[in-house]
Amino acid sequence: MNLMTVGTLALDDIKTPFGEVKGALGGSATYFGLAASFFTECGLIGVVGSDFPEEHLDFLKSKKLDLSGIEAASGKTFRWSGSYEFDMNQAHTLKTELNVLSEFNPKIPGGFRNCEILFLANIDPDLQLEVLEKVKPKYCFADTMNFWIEGNRESLDEVFGRVDGIIINDSEARQYCKTPNLIACGKILSRLNDGKVIIKKGEHGILYFSEERFFSLPAYPVENLVDPTGAGDSFAGGTLGHLAKHGEFSDEMMRKSIVCGSTVASYVVSGFSVDGIKVRTHEDIESRYQHFRNIVAFDHNL
Amino acid sequence: MNLMTVGTLALDDIKTPFGEVKGALGGSATYFGLAASFFTECGLIGVVGSDFPEEHLDFLKSKKLDLSGIEAASGKTFRWSGSYEFDMNQAHTLKTELNVLSEFNPKIPGGFRNCEILFLANIDPDLQLEVLEKVKPKYCFADTMNFWIEGNRESLDEVFGRVDGIIINDSEARQYCKTPNLIACGKILSRLNDGKVIIKKGEHGILYFSEERFFSLPAYPVENLVDPTGAGDSFAGGTLGHLAKHGEFSDEMMRKSIVCGSTVASYVVSGFSVDGIKVRTHEDIESRYQHFRNIVAFDHNL
Repeated sequence: MNLMTVGTLALDDIKTPFGEVKGALGGSATYFGLAASFFTECGLIGVVGSDFPEEHLDFLKSKKLDLSGIEAASGKTFRWSGSYEFDMNQAHTLKTELNVLSEFNPKIPGGFRNCEILFLANIDPDLQLEVLEKVKPKYCFADTMNFWIEGNRESLDEVFGRVDGIIINDSEARQYCKTPNLIACGKILSRLNDGKVIIKKGEHGILYFSEERFFSLPAYPVENLVDPTGAGDSFAGGTLGHLAKHGEFSDEMMRKSIVCGSTVASYVVSGFSVDGIKVRTHEDIESRYQHFRNIVAFDHNL
Repeated sequence: MNLMTVGTLALDDIKTPFGEVKGALGGSATYFGLAASFFTECGLIGVVGSDFPEEHLDFLKSKKLDLSGIEAASGKTFRWSGSYEFDMNQAHTLKTELNVLSEFNPKIPGGFRNCEILFLANIDPDLQLEVLEKVKPKYCFADTMNFWIEGNRESLDEVFGRVDGIIINDSEARQYCKTPNLIACGKILSRLNDGKVIIKKGEHGILYFSEERFFSLPAYPVENLVDPTGAGDSFAGGTLGHLAKHGEFSDEMMRKSIVCGSTVASYVVSGFSVDGIKVRTHEDIESRYQHFRNIVAFDHNL
């Protein structure tokens, strides 16, 4: 296994100005894995309840995802209920039901322990640290959210100090670093471990900091934004999936991988739940990747 | 004269978390002209009061700016007083004293009437229309602000329908177009006259819409953001100054000009008033332009 993630599989109730869905397939591991599947095989570590539809598992398997790390627990699957206003920038959480997630204790199948790249999706930093005790990946990236920055900062600091890369939202980078300037945030975060830092800015794209270089990518222009849920995890999945496929971590490769992640995310937000990517092919990614180049191109002669 | 602008010359009181200045050189025409001066000569149309320091006029002249369209009126110069919070995104206007601007009636010197490019900075749309009666430029670009969108929409609609290009802030584009999606805004604005539309997003860069193509440029990374005043007008000045120098309006040239405008603006915000650009040379622009290419570059092989 070259790539694995520890995160959630969820049933989501989502309402946006463009419609709503109930009990739809969601969760960070789900979005990450589906996005990564355009480029490579990926193992998922997570837990589902007895109400999790078999068809969802069949769908994930059909995308070359390895589900041997998914625990089937008795009880209800993790449920998230949220809504978006017309500007779509901020998810408003209406309800979070942890259910089987509250007793989740990640078990790592033997074949996963020496994976190349591990993505610690947004879960309790103590769980992230537990996984880091059990898995020795070549490269590890971690995400987090405001809830843990406020509630478990000490463990989160330890996670950030131990991973090779941080993938984080702009608002959470500002909160963690206590400064509004994102360039300053990137420098602060990358000094934690001399590692790679990716700041996700939603409709405004991506900032990527590493050692001495800096990469800035605007977002792919999406006019038919229907449901932003999963955009961040899909970005991470597309980026790390592309990296895992090539097994190379040069600055040039990181940049290409980030464009791939942004491309996948641009498809995700054009439909509810996973509808925006489930019918997409590698050719769709390739085509939008090339369009991306056209969008940012300018000549070197001033 | 290849390039001219109609706008304000001001004395600004500005306070940011990094310091404050009182009675400092400011105004849309000032910033526009200084930014354009890196690339071409530029004529300014505006009015100053009897309190406007001679040294400011000498400074503007020293930058090859043609001040024959500046009226010296008796009374006080236009004054703007504003402050910025720690996040620097939004200027809070504390006081606006129109003074000599309240009676301003733009007079266009003969040599200006057939200029190549005219920039109508943010002034009353009725004044913008008056200028359009007197000047017949090859290309005309206009800016505006929330005050006119709310207070003189009818005249503003006429301005936008008559110019070749609109240069506007993201929040004002959203307000004018009544939609939060900036891609949709760009399309709505460019349909007004089948023209060019530039949406300024501050720290998030620029979106440029024209006919069938789309260009998106992130902002140059500025960590030492000291005073954002004048960033938008400097961007416009750098962009149109570079266009006027080359006298060509191809998509490729527009993109290069937008990068030049962004580069100049990135210097402006690193100092109070015009301090951030007054000592800069064309070599500084060239160097940051090339760094910009490095910042957005990625390979075409996915």
